[in-house]
Amino acid sequence: MRAITIPQPGGPDALIWAEVPDPEPGPGEVIVDVRAAGVNRADLLQRQGHYPPPPGAPEYLGLECSGVISAIGPEVTGWAIGQQVCALLAGGGYAERVAVPAGQLLPVPAGVDLVDAAALPEVACTVWSNLVPVGRLNSGDTLLVHGGGSGIGTFAIQFGAALGATILATARATKHSRLRELGAAHTIDYREQDFVEEARRATDGHGVDVILDIMGAAYLGRNVAALATGGRLVVIGLQGGRKAELDLGALLTKRASVLATSLRARPLTEKAEIVRGVRDEVWPLIEAGRIRPVVDRRLPMTEAAEAHRLVESNDHVGKVLLTVG
Amino acid sequence: MRAITIPQPGGPDALIWAEVPDPEPGPGEVIVDVRAAGVNRADLLQRQGHYPPPPGAPEYLGLECSGVISAIGPEVTGWAIGQQVCALLAGGGYAERVAVPAGQLLPVPAGVDLVDAAALPEVACTVWSNLVPVGRLNSGDTLLVHGGGSGIGTFAIQFGAALGATILATARATKHSRLRELGAAHTIDYREQDFVEEARRATDGHGVDVILDIMGAAYLGRNVAALATGGRLVVIGLQGGRKAELDLGALLTKRASVLATSLRARPLTEKAEIVRGVRDEVWPLIEAGRIRPVVDRRLPMTEAAEAHRLVESNDHVGKVLLTVG
Repeated sequence: MRAITIPQPGGPDALIWAEVPDPEPGPGEVIVDVRAAGVNRADLLQRQGHYPPPPGAPEYLGLECSGVISAIGPEVTGWAIGQQVCALLAGGGYAERVAVPAGQLLPVPAGVDLVDAAALPEVACTVWSNLVPVGRLNSGDTLLVHGGGSGIGTFAIQFGAALGATILATARATKHSRLRELGAAHTIDYREQDFVEEARRATDGHGVDVILDIMGAAYLGRNVAALATGGRLVVIGLQGGRKAELDLGALLTKRASVLATSLRARPLTEKAEIVRGVRDEVWPLIEAGRIRPVVDRRLPMTEAAEAHRLVESNDHVGKVLLTVG
Repeated sequence: MRAITIPQPGGPDALIWAEVPDPEPGPGEVIVDVRAAGVNRADLLQRQGHYPPPPGAPEYLGLECSGVISAIGPEVTGWAIGQQVCALLAGGGYAERVAVPAGQLLPVPAGVDLVDAAALPEVACTVWSNLVPVGRLNSGDTLLVHGGGSGIGTFAIQFGAALGATILATARATKHSRLRELGAAHTIDYREQDFVEEARRATDGHGVDVILDIMGAAYLGRNVAALATGGRLVVIGLQGGRKAELDLGALLTKRASVLATSLRARPLTEKAEIVRGVRDEVWPLIEAGRIRPVVDRRLPMTEAAEAHRLVESNDHVGKVLLTVG
């Protein structure tokens, strides 16, 4: 088969579509013939050599895909050859075929195109696991989503609104109208406005109940300042660095918490549990049309370099997909 | 009645036993004739003028007491004059009588002396609320208790062990044998040993699942280092300062969290919920003899200054109680 290889880590042009050995399905795995793969920010880091795949993961880029099951390994039940699926991957989506642990497969939701389904697994699993079991978002809560225009951001806005939360989102002003269409009640231009002040204004001074953050250190102090009593700051990205001063006194007065998680390094059993939660609690919302995959663009896999440039530019809204065949 | 008053904030001798007006029971309140009051570290701060009572709270010191109900206000059901009780207070325990919201009353547990019962409300509510709903301590987890010799520490050791957790506790070496009797599997002399290294050694390198911390800033970095994957750092005191650098990268890699809480400032409904949880989940363990009040010393209320000196010295193990009558 062919896959995107990285003979030499570096810029987008380091990505080379080349012939590689076919994957074999191990026990508990299926082979998916890839129709599309989602581009994630982590892929950009891995391309530069900064984010090696966890032990046992496929060496190629790609944390999610959609496609058709073409082979089934031993000890797999409940899935059939020919079935259309999408999948959460520890790697390997930028390829014609990928071996996937069966616990990380999801059916393509009714009403969603097979290509667009590649936009769902990573964002659905990340958003559901961080907002429900970790962040305990409830109906009536306020949720502040940083990077509201990203794949995760556009999904978190829709999912939070479907849960009955009031959504605030930070993004460049050019993306605001799109985010309001998706369900954001308040949009904040992080380049012109202070999100702490805007969050207070939007909540009658109370602050927000949950923050989904991708900026890490750069926003830590202001995020704590923006939290309501009992608030939960959920950090899932470190785009603004990893170390910053934490005011435990402010946290204690608010009875608030700072929670940080990542999806990729979790053991298989935890990933399977998350995928099960997504199938039970998120898939019905997609099938009811209350959450839609937000796809900025589809590009052929041979244009992976262009796709990476686009994600690096931050000009997109939602997901960028790479198609195969 | 008489109460401990503070004409001028300052050292222990600022505490003056003096005649003051009797409290009146408001709607939903009862009057308790105090038999004993527990001394808490927060009382030392309030004596120095650093920790004013929350709005609406009695102005006198004292966050817990035991005694007998002597009057019942309107809208109170389920309690009777003459009943022996102990109570969580927002203030006012250092007095002959105190008005208590009925939701903060607890019966004296079977088998516990009325005076000793004053040692229970604050530690039981603090420990249960932080280890169960906040810290989600499970059977089989490891729990690190800082300040293992304090009232909270001695209670947390017993409660954690009763839940089936393995307990590590830091304390001065002179207190270690007592903490082992209470259920600590490993005791750490924080003046001679590195608790991060000891926690790793005691857990085959995994780290601990939950930390109950009173040191705040001074321990933040080392506490995060001592956590296991999925670990929860619960900060309930700031004896080592409030601001310190947090490594969000370490937190994210471990999928760990920093939670900070306080009990005193919570609204009445939350306090009543905690008291209900304690009555349902902790009182049976006390009545079964699996948790005992740990009382270092009883002193008459007129010796409140001496009691404060004792708690300041940190030489005690468990609670110091002030008795009335």
